[in-house]
Amino acid sequence: ERTGVAEAILGSGKSAEQIASIVETVLSAEARMLITRLDPEKARALGRFGEQVRYDALSGTAEVGVPRIVSSVPAVAVVAAGTSDMSVAQQALRTLAFFGESATLFADIGVAGLWRLTERLEEIRQFPVVIAVAGMEGAIFSVLAGLVRAPVIAVPTSVGYGVSEGGHAALSSALASCAPGVLVVNIDNGFGAAAAALKILNVGRG
Amino acid sequence: ERTGVAEAILGSGKSAEQIASIVETVLSAEARMLITRLDPEKARALGRFGEQVRYDALSGTAEVGVPRIVSSVPAVAVVAAGTSDMSVAQQALRTLAFFGESATLFADIGVAGLWRLTERLEEIRQFPVVIAVAGMEGAIFSVLAGLVRAPVIAVPTSVGYGVSEGGHAALSSALASCAPGVLVVNIDNGFGAAAAALKILNVGRG
Amino acid sequence: ERTGVAEAILGSGKSAEQIASIVETVLSAEARMLITRLDPEKARALGRFGEQVRYDALSGTAEVGVPRIVSSVPAVAVVAAGTSDMSVAQQALRTLAFFGESATLFADIGVAGLWRLTERLEEIRQFPVVIAVAGMEGAIFSVLAGLVRAPVIAVPTSVGYGVSEGGHAALSSALASCAPGVLVVNIDNGFGAAAAALKILNVGRG
Amino acid sequence: ERTGVAEAILGSGKSAEQIASIVETVLSAEARMLITRLDPEKARALGRFGEQVRYDALSGTAEVGVPRIVSSVPAVAVVAAGTSDMSVAQQALRTLAFFGESATLFADIGVAGLWRLTERLEEIRQFPVVIAVAGMEGAIFSVLAGLVRAPVIAVPTSVGYGVSEGGHAALSSALASCAPGVLVVNIDNGFGAAAAALKILNVGRG
Amino acid sequence: ERTGVAEAILGSGKSAEQIASIVETVLSAEARMLITRLDPEKARALGRFGEQVRYDALSGTAEVGVPRIVSSVPAVAVVAAGTSDMSVAQQALRTLAFFGESATLFADIGVAGLWRLTERLEEIRQFPVVIAVAGMEGAIFSVLAGLVRAPVIAVPTSVGYGVSEGGHAALSSALASCAPGVLVVNIDNGFGAAAAALKILNVGRG
Amino acid sequence: ERTGVAEAILGSGKSAEQIASIVETVLSAEARMLITRLDPEKARALGRFGEQVRYDALSGTAEVGVPRIVSSVPAVAVVAAGTSDMSVAQQALRTLAFFGESATLFADIGVAGLWRLTERLEEIRQFPVVIAVAGMEGAIFSVLAGLVRAPVIAVPTSVGYGVSEGGHAALSSALASCAPGVLVVNIDNGFGAAAAALKILNVGRG
Amino acid sequence: ERTGVAEAILGSGKSAEQIASIVETVLSAEARMLITRLDPEKARALGRFGEQVRYDALSGTAEVGVPRIVSSVPAVAVVAAGTSDMSVAQQALRTLAFFGESATLFADIGVAGLWRLTERLEEIRQFPVVIAVAGMEGAIFSVLAGLVRAPVIAVPTSVGYGVSEGGHAALSSALASCAPGVLVVNIDNGFGAAAAALKILNVGRG
Amino acid sequence: ERTGVAEAILGSGKSAEQIASIVETVLSAEARMLITRLDPEKARALGRFGEQVRYDALSGTAEVGVPRIVSSVPAVAVVAAGTSDMSVAQQALRTLAFFGESATLFADIGVAGLWRLTERLEEIRQFPVVIAVAGMEGAIFSVLAGLVRAPVIAVPTSVGYGVSEGGHAALSSALASCAPGVLVVNIDNGFGAAAAALKILNVGRG
Ligand SMILES: Nc1ncnc2c1ncn2[C@@H]1O[C@H](COP(=O)(O)O)[C@@H](O)[C@H]1O
Ligand SMILES: Nc1ncnc2c1ncn2[C@@H]1O[C@H](COP(=O)(O)O)[C@@H](O)[C@H]1O
Ligand SMILES: Nc1ncnc2c1ncn2[C@@H]1O[C@H](COP(=O)(O)O)[C@@H](O)[C@H]1O
Ligand SMILES: Nc1ncnc2c1ncn2[C@@H]1O[C@H](COP(=O)(O)O)[C@@H](O)[C@H]1O
Ligand SMILES: [Mg+2]
Ligand SMILES: [Mg+2]
Ligand SMILES: [Mg+2]
Ligand SMILES: [Mg+2]
Ligand SMILES: [Mg+2]
Ligand SMILES: [Mg+2]
Ligand SMILES: [Mg+2]
Ligand SMILES: [Mg+2]
Repeated sequence: ERTGVAEAILGSGKSAEQIASIVETVLSAEARMLITRLDPEKARALGRFGEQVRYDALSGTAEVGVPRIVSSVPAVAVVAAGTSDMSVAQQALRTLAFFGESATLFADIGVAGLWRLTERLEEIRQFPVVIAVAGMEGAIFSVLAGLVRAPVIAVPTSVGYGVSEGGHAALSSALASCAPGVLVVNIDNGFGAAAAALKILNVGRG
Repeated sequence: ERTGVAEAILGSGKSAEQIASIVETVLSAEARMLITRLDPEKARALGRFGEQVRYDALSGTAEVGVPRIVSSVPAVAVVAAGTSDMSVAQQALRTLAFFGESATLFADIGVAGLWRLTERLEEIRQFPVVIAVAGMEGAIFSVLAGLVRAPVIAVPTSVGYGVSEGGHAALSSALASCAPGVLVVNIDNGFGAAAAALKILNVGRG
Repeated sequence: ERTGVAEAILGSGKSAEQIASIVETVLSAEARMLITRLDPEKARALGRFGEQVRYDALSGTAEVGVPRIVSSVPAVAVVAAGTSDMSVAQQALRTLAFFGESATLFADIGVAGLWRLTERLEEIRQFPVVIAVAGMEGAIFSVLAGLVRAPVIAVPTSVGYGVSEGGHAALSSALASCAPGVLVVNIDNGFGAAAAALKILNVGRG
Repeated sequence: ERTGVAEAILGSGKSAEQIASIVETVLSAEARMLITRLDPEKARALGRFGEQVRYDALSGTAEVGVPRIVSSVPAVAVVAAGTSDMSVAQQALRTLAFFGESATLFADIGVAGLWRLTERLEEIRQFPVVIAVAGMEGAIFSVLAGLVRAPVIAVPTSVGYGVSEGGHAALSSALASCAPGVLVVNIDNGFGAAAAALKILNVGRG
Repeated sequence: ERTGVAEAILGSGKSAEQIASIVETVLSAEARMLITRLDPEKARALGRFGEQVRYDALSGTAEVGVPRIVSSVPAVAVVAAGTSDMSVAQQALRTLAFFGESATLFADIGVAGLWRLTERLEEIRQFPVVIAVAGMEGAIFSVLAGLVRAPVIAVPTSVGYGVSEGGHAALSSALASCAPGVLVVNIDNGFGAAAAALKILNVGRG
Repeated sequence: ERTGVAEAILGSGKSAEQIASIVETVLSAEARMLITRLDPEKARALGRFGEQVRYDALSGTAEVGVPRIVSSVPAVAVVAAGTSDMSVAQQALRTLAFFGESATLFADIGVAGLWRLTERLEEIRQFPVVIAVAGMEGAIFSVLAGLVRAPVIAVPTSVGYGVSEGGHAALSSALASCAPGVLVVNIDNGFGAAAAALKILNVGRG
Repeated sequence: ERTGVAEAILGSGKSAEQIASIVETVLSAEARMLITRLDPEKARALGRFGEQVRYDALSGTAEVGVPRIVSSVPAVAVVAAGTSDMSVAQQALRTLAFFGESATLFADIGVAGLWRLTERLEEIRQFPVVIAVAGMEGAIFSVLAGLVRAPVIAVPTSVGYGVSEGGHAALSSALASCAPGVLVVNIDNGFGAAAAALKILNVGRG
Repeated sequence: ERTGVAEAILGSGKSAEQIASIVETVLSAEARMLITRLDPEKARALGRFGEQVRYDALSGTAEVGVPRIVSSVPAVAVVAAGTSDMSVAQQALRTLAFFGESATLFADIGVAGLWRLTERLEEIRQFPVVIAVAGMEGAIFSVLAGLVRAPVIAVPTSVGYGVSEGGHAALSSALASCAPGVLVVNIDNGFGAAAAALKILNVGRG
């Protein structure tokens, strides 16, 4: 909390036993924690904790401890380019909720069909912070950042094949964007985007 | 001419003497030739051929032999994203002219200012073939291909720095485009894009 | 259809449920759709739609909705270098059929046995558009483009091991081709090649 | 200005003539503009515009038009890891000034001598936004983000040799940071970091 | 033993039969051997050797032959950044024990929470050699090397995703460290770090 | 001479003084030596040795010591794809001559104009060893190896731009060739190809 | 046979049905064929052909048709650096046998224990051609080539982890070797090395 | 000095003025400093400091302040593979001298001529610490580490072309070495190797 961001751990790279033991410690301390990149099999191994560990399969996240009340006014627009980007978008949404923030999802906003973006642009423009989630060539990052005043946090996703396999094409697009002020996080890092959005909102709130 | 495309050579990687000797052969045979990627210093070494070798500094190209008459109806739209992409766009224009085709240039059509594209979209839509030239993150390729019926030939440029240095970010964007039917050539290869456009126009002309 | 290319979606990166729900929407709208990169397991989950969803295992594609009548005159030559390139070649053929175009397959046309190409060259030369599909070192792209007047769309495949693993050697070969006018799409992107071929044929048809 | 960020152009990749002509247009329109990545030689070619074009050699930037009044309260901390990172840090400072924001520079804050950071930490913590500029291995990004509540914008620099040549090691460090909420821009992109900082400050100001 | 380091083999890339046959040879010769990167399945195939082959699942190592007595004074500090780095840290500890050295583990010493390091710094400073194990962005290598007099051997781990997938971001960080005297081994090579630590301790012991 | 190959040194990476001092030693020992990758400026600094150091500018090589008599029957075919590959081809020819072998050069044998190869194929087939030199996409390696019985040594050249810059596309093509038995050396390494050809000829000669 | 090398196909990337159908064709034509990179599962699907298809699991190769008589005098030395390189070495041995050549295997010849090489050096020196198989850092290629007169064909293997994962470190070592005349084939390409060795032996035999 | 290593700065990436001003500060404080990667032009700009700044052109280093007395017993063997590696080897020697250590240089110890190493092996074996400097394929690292008991610090150099350009092939060789206990520093980082050697010697000295 020294940085204004509550505790979170990465589920991948830890065994089910290691995770269960960390959960135990958190719950005994009556604390809260978010687990990200947790696969369904490891999540099942946390079943014995009941409602104290709330798993969401689409995003691969689990909330541990007493849920926080989520603000009623959504402060972040999460824009997802395609259906395949939904799990990373959902990781951002779940992380924001864990921090007590609500957000609005704008799904299927690809640039190959620009009207899908322009139809919803006015709505998106109302939000103080925008998180954009896209794989493949990630063209949406530049287009969006050229149209809104809010800071745009780009989350490249590992969706794709050939040159876009693993998300490196989308990552380069985000970093090389000719639209000023695009901010970038690691591939598939919906968690980091949400944490940064929270920090930005805190700037506004003083 | 077995492939419908007249002779062209790369100026880089050849000495001024080697180029002059090739030019000599072409002129004695009363043939024509295009030289690309020719730097000003080597071009000067061709000065003695007078008007038989016509150099253009912006594109780094030289036409050798009797000029061909250029068609009066432009058949190709060449769309350039930024001022820095102009030399590659000009390489495409010069190559088309060498083949007897005229083309229309649409300059400064970046996606960070989407209105620059939408303002000119109806005009661009009139062309049977579109060549798009862009560096940095190359988002224009996807946006354009999602808006026109013509085949879009993407030419990534080496303009940029950091992750876009050398043109690899723009190349990946073009190849990974989520808009169907984007066709890609090598970085800075305005010549290849023009040669391909010519082949496509020939399909139409039977 | 704003771009002359009907709707298609990527099957990989979407869950079976997500795909089924999109299919449902398409069928209720009495529309048509192509699904690419669909593995057999997910295809099975679409079994309940019966003949409205027609799956082809070799290419990993499924046609959704009422089949379109395919033109009787094949307009595209699809040239495959090896047996291992057949699934990507078939993806191109299926996409063309979905668009109402028929095409002719030229199989096992590798450059290590050049006579296999020269034997069939005259036939290939009759087609207005050529799609070439090859993995490993992709030498066929340059050889073919040096022998035909038609535009050649190169589809590098991920077939190979060592330096050609994932298709990057073939992709570089296609882009760096010394034959003018080779047009390139992403690795394994038979769909994109077919969509571009359609756009090129449309140029001819006005 | 649709995005809250005034006009800026890249000086690299444009000829001195092209830049001069853009400057002319801007000045006739009584507008303002920032030029980045402008080398001293091209800057000299703008000498005839006198005080209307103010060049700064360390950052390679030029302000064009009437200077804006800069706020008296610095709102951004710019933390530079080494002497060699000063030109990128200065690019950020100049861009902020162009936007009317003042900022405080914290120089020579490397992690190999951690006390240099801890000595000045309390001061840095007072700022709503932090821009961190570092090359080599970029360890400062994670350390700093773990110690302050403000969003940290990481600018990797191309300073370094061997594996850090060109800035890719520092870029990866910034993106892979285990400290939540680090936001990243392209290598050497002090301009983008400043533009993003401005957008974030605007969130706070409503 | 010509190099002061006893025999060790890589378990990955060898079949269970190949490994069993090597073990047989070693045991008949009454020699000792360490097997690293040995997965549980292959380890099970060595069950028939009983206590002569001692497998440790966390580190994936097996000791073959009569155990050596381990020194009672720990001479190496093994510092692990995260829970996910524990298996590589354990590989180093097991290798040291195989060589007869004891070591002290410092777990969960990440830089995002710098106090975790500073709290234990005095203890770490007592050791003549430090092995640091970290994935993600590997910032701990520079921070630690800037704070201790001992040589720091950096072991980057393959823990991470996106740009840190496979350990290359952490490897670059270690090599590009601005703290003088960081020594680096291959990704996940806890064995090599331990072997080098042993060689360094031998310098001290003459 | 333990390996059947006389002494050779790399000129790049050594100062003119270092080279001159090595030459002096070689000449006093009445030995012979080949210098490769020697630029004209350093070659001039060897002027004082007169005819004992024979420099060739096209290939950047210098022969030191008494010339060896070159065999009258050429045993190697050196096939160069383009004019830009001539300097590397010449490096191979000069190295062969240094070893006492003569060779025949086949220039301008590109695959984009396949007839250039087929016209000269019967001649090339007479040679026991073939060295093929090509940049760009290097398709000639596979085509040639599919047509001759001799071992084909592929020398990729650094000629090219975009994806073929530095020679990596041609190198991958050579290694991934679907024609069996292509042997590859480093980019621009005409010297190594010639040394290997000599070793192969020695096999034949017993 | 136009190139002196009999027919071979790649088993990976083909379905069991595709392979069986090719085998059928070969056997009806009373021809012979080698299948490489064939996994055990696909090999089982060829069981019905009985002794006409002879599978070897270690090398993943199958010989199809009447076996050829193998020469009684081994002409090739196959040197393998480690146990993990045995399957690629065996691929080379099987390919040579398919071509009618016998060879001698030198196993476990690593450079970390140089005496293993020097002990057997005189024997290796008797062979007209040497194939060297090594993964990890591939140092054996340079050491061996510096000690024998025969051409050395280097086969890098994909054995290794971290920076040597996939064989790229060993490949670079082979290509960059400072020993003149090392010839390189693709990673894991024991087949290609054997085919090239055959071609070299044919040079000697005229 | 908190780490036992005196102050050093990187000359590249700093202007001559910046360096001069740092030198001034150091001299006024009667302190000492080492400058590395300092080119001759910048060194000349330090001429006014006279003997207080001692520049060495081969290594590109400058010692600032009162020279330290160098120990009379050399404690480090610096082994350089080729003439081109001499400047990096000299950087290590100069750094050691700056720290008060003397060292012995073993030049021209390449593996292509193994006898050059074996002839001097007994001498090298006397040193408690070995620094090995090599470019190209860096095979010497593994060979040496397999023959001596001392820790071997590998310094890959940027010497080379093609795949070894920039030093990445040598770096991978060092990291992937099959000889246990090779310790690696960044490409061309003779300074870091010397600093680490000093730390290792300090272990011995307690
Ligand atoms: N999906 C994620 N991506 C990046 N960092 C994360 C993620 N989830 C948790 N973290 C951060 O990773 C660190 C946890 O590391 P560990 O304790 O090794 O799991 C904390 O600093 C978290 O803030
Ligand atoms: N140093 C810089 N880095 C990244 N983008 C920049 C920089 N300077 C200007 N820009 C942006 O680049 C675009 C200008 O492109 P151009 O018109 O081609 O110079 C504008 O969108 C600017 O906001
Ligand atoms: N392991 C292998 N590595 C490289 N090429 C091979 C291998 N096995 C067979 N080949 C070659 O690959 C080609 C066969 O390709 P395909 O017909 O697609 O299997 C032939 O030219 C063979 O000589
Ligand atoms: N050649 C070198 N390679 C790596 N680090 C160096 C080198 N020379 C000096 N350093 C280190 O770089 C830091 C100096 O950084 P700076 O103050 O930016 O020059 C100090 O920690 C030095 O120990
Ligand atoms: Mg997308
Ligand atoms: Mg652009
Ligand atoms: Mg192929
Ligand atoms: Mg730094
Ligand atoms: Mg870590
Ligand atoms: Mg070529
Ligand atoms: Mg090996
Ligand atoms: Mg060397």
